[in-house]
Amino acid sequence: MLPSRSHESIAVLIPTMPLFPLTITHRDDEARTGVYHTAHGDVDTPAFMPIGTAGSVKGVTPIQLLGTGAQMILANTYHLQLRPTAEAVRDLGGLHRFMGWDGPILTDSGGYQAFSLAEINKITDDGVDFRSHIDGARMWLDPEIATDVQNKLGADVIMAFDECPPLPCDQDTLVRAVERTVCWAAQCKEHHGRPDDQALFGIVQGGLDVDLRRSCAAALIDIGFDGYAVGGLSVGETHQEMAEVLPPITEALPADRVRYLMGVGMPRDLLVAVQAGVDLFDCVLPTRNGRNSQAFTRTGTLNLRNEAHRLAAGPLEDNCDCETCRGFSRGYIRHLFNAGEMLGPTLTSIHNLRFFQKFMARVRELIRAGRLATIVQEFPIAAPPARVEKEKRS
Amino acid sequence: MLPSRSHESIAVLIPTMPLFPLTITHRDDEARTGVYHTAHGDVDTPAFMPIGTAGSVKGVTPIQLLGTGAQMILANTYHLQLRPTAEAVRDLGGLHRFMGWDGPILTDSGGYQAFSLAEINKITDDGVDFRSHIDGARMWLDPEIATDVQNKLGADVIMAFDECPPLPCDQDTLVRAVERTVCWAAQCKEHHGRPDDQALFGIVQGGLDVDLRRSCAAALIDIGFDGYAVGGLSVGETHQEMAEVLPPITEALPADRVRYLMGVGMPRDLLVAVQAGVDLFDCVLPTRNGRNSQAFTRTGTLNLRNEAHRLAAGPLEDNCDCETCRGFSRGYIRHLFNAGEMLGPTLTSIHNLRFFQKFMARVRELIRAGRLATIVQEFPIAAPPARVEKEKRS
Repeated sequence: MLPSRSHESIAVLIPTMPLFPLTITHRDDEARTGVYHTAHGDVDTPAFMPIGTAGSVKGVTPIQLLGTGAQMILANTYHLQLRPTAEAVRDLGGLHRFMGWDGPILTDSGGYQAFSLAEINKITDDGVDFRSHIDGARMWLDPEIATDVQNKLGADVIMAFDECPPLPCDQDTLVRAVERTVCWAAQCKEHHGRPDDQALFGIVQGGLDVDLRRSCAAALIDIGFDGYAVGGLSVGETHQEMAEVLPPITEALPADRVRYLMGVGMPRDLLVAVQAGVDLFDCVLPTRNGRNSQAFTRTGTLNLRNEAHRLAAGPLEDNCDCETCRGFSRGYIRHLFNAGEMLGPTLTSIHNLRFFQKFMARVRELIRAGRLATIVQEFPIAAPPARVEKEKRS
Repeated sequence: MLPSRSHESIAVLIPTMPLFPLTITHRDDEARTGVYHTAHGDVDTPAFMPIGTAGSVKGVTPIQLLGTGAQMILANTYHLQLRPTAEAVRDLGGLHRFMGWDGPILTDSGGYQAFSLAEINKITDDGVDFRSHIDGARMWLDPEIATDVQNKLGADVIMAFDECPPLPCDQDTLVRAVERTVCWAAQCKEHHGRPDDQALFGIVQGGLDVDLRRSCAAALIDIGFDGYAVGGLSVGETHQEMAEVLPPITEALPADRVRYLMGVGMPRDLLVAVQAGVDLFDCVLPTRNGRNSQAFTRTGTLNLRNEAHRLAAGPLEDNCDCETCRGFSRGYIRHLFNAGEMLGPTLTSIHNLRFFQKFMARVRELIRAGRLATIVQEFPIAAPPARVEKEKRS
């Protein structure tokens, strides 16, 4: 009886349909491309999120950021809670209004700062006792508070509070971090106050231990999240180690939910992760390196303080369509860095941000065309490290 | 015999018609408004030029600068000759291409830096022996070199090399500075290598001594320049002293040439100078104060680090049409300064630059309407200092 079966199917499907779905349109082996729907609009995946740590993607305005093709950005809970506080952001209209960014935003949970600022905090089973990196004042974060803070900030995607151990790391530490991460994730889901307009992602920990990663993933899936992040990578392991550990992790995650690899990374890291089925990335590289006079190009990076660029009348990269390359020479940008002008970091950040967006756009195109692997011909910078060395020798 | 008189008039007029004319359309007492025509386009006068000392208006892109309404900008010969050198700017396509600014540009001559960087240089009758403020290296500037450097940079308006004494200043120093300035101005005109596409302005010195100013002006007019600047003000004298000395100086200058008051200034200074018949201004105030968290408004300035702005959801100034006020709250901008984000200086500079352009646009409108003096009702910040104090007391 087809009609009744159809009714049954609907009844079964409705409760599992995510409020903010990922629509996958094409696959190329494990790589996939599509659209992630959020409360503040759609994001073409795989997507790269620029980072606005303290509520500003450093050195660029939201209009300039839009011009680079960025669709979704990340802001840091720890930094915003310290200054100006989540209450202040909420009172100033919430994170989107605060930053002047009307597109999708993701906030991390503060868990990563327990690792990155490890010298000034103490982790227990209940949460993390931070010392402010600004003035040493104490700040307590736990699953409930991290979720409440993110509810107040109001991003479209919020993250479960996790423990991110450094790599390498002894097995006991790793296991304990996974246990805490799973336990905390359940508490975050329980305390999530805005499930109707904020997606909540769980974070898979477990270092390079594939079995631990799989059991962490299974436990998080049991709890049930809107999306799943892979944390604890790009924290000391090699590119090869990351490339090997990712496929079994993503395989353990639901195919119909966003997979987000946190804090990654270099174009070659992005490529192997996309090939493992990851949809979402964030990294400070385009802006941090841009401020430090390093420009990304398809074939590698340029140090703009180099004397070689003194009289270079060409752009940072030939045929680049970014605001910087359309208006300014390498020689001028080198001069800006030498003279300590703010415009040097700004123009180089704009170029780098556009470079990462162009790379991801091409990744999406090549997945649709079923030939993602050929991207290293257009972007040699995305080749694995060994291959780059081999090319240099030849 | 009318026809022959007409012929005579044409014969007499043609040699005195400037290549880059000032068209005056309206007058209000001594104030005048019109259009100054340069090799890179027209400028509505009276005009305020933002300063791009080292080839960049600090913190903003040329597109953002255009958005503030700026039409003409200034760059500093001394700084550009030190770094990256005039030859490098020329080899990178000239100042317009170098900076990515296709509108009119004026370069100063380096003379002012002999005053502003006085501890590290030596002035003789032949020129100035600078010590680089960057690395102590020696740099010699004299009328011939300053003109040659400006010919290489390629601005639309270049300035004669002058001596700018500080105020107060003894009479001997003042007289000697005027003598050198006139002598050097003649040498600059003689050495000017691009009279067809670069206007050359002479600079009137003489401190607060009106007779000395008049004789300096007369000597410069004898030599003949495309425009005339008033130098040596805003260097230590009071607003009242400036307001009193300006009218007799501008009266001594040709009515059909641009009058440029160098390094000025606060809105109240701009107003009294416009009322004395000045057409052109430059000052670092909008950007320097913007970087230091000070925002200009019609009624005064705001210190954005002030706690009072912490939760202020409104813009820097109500009804302001600048990019900053259309997108961001005072509370957010205060946060940016507190967090050390580059975007704070950028957004405040954009607002301040727009504020000065809006002020000048209103000055031009009110000259056309014949009621410039009423501007202090709309812009109390432009009232003379005594009046502001009086208002505060009432």
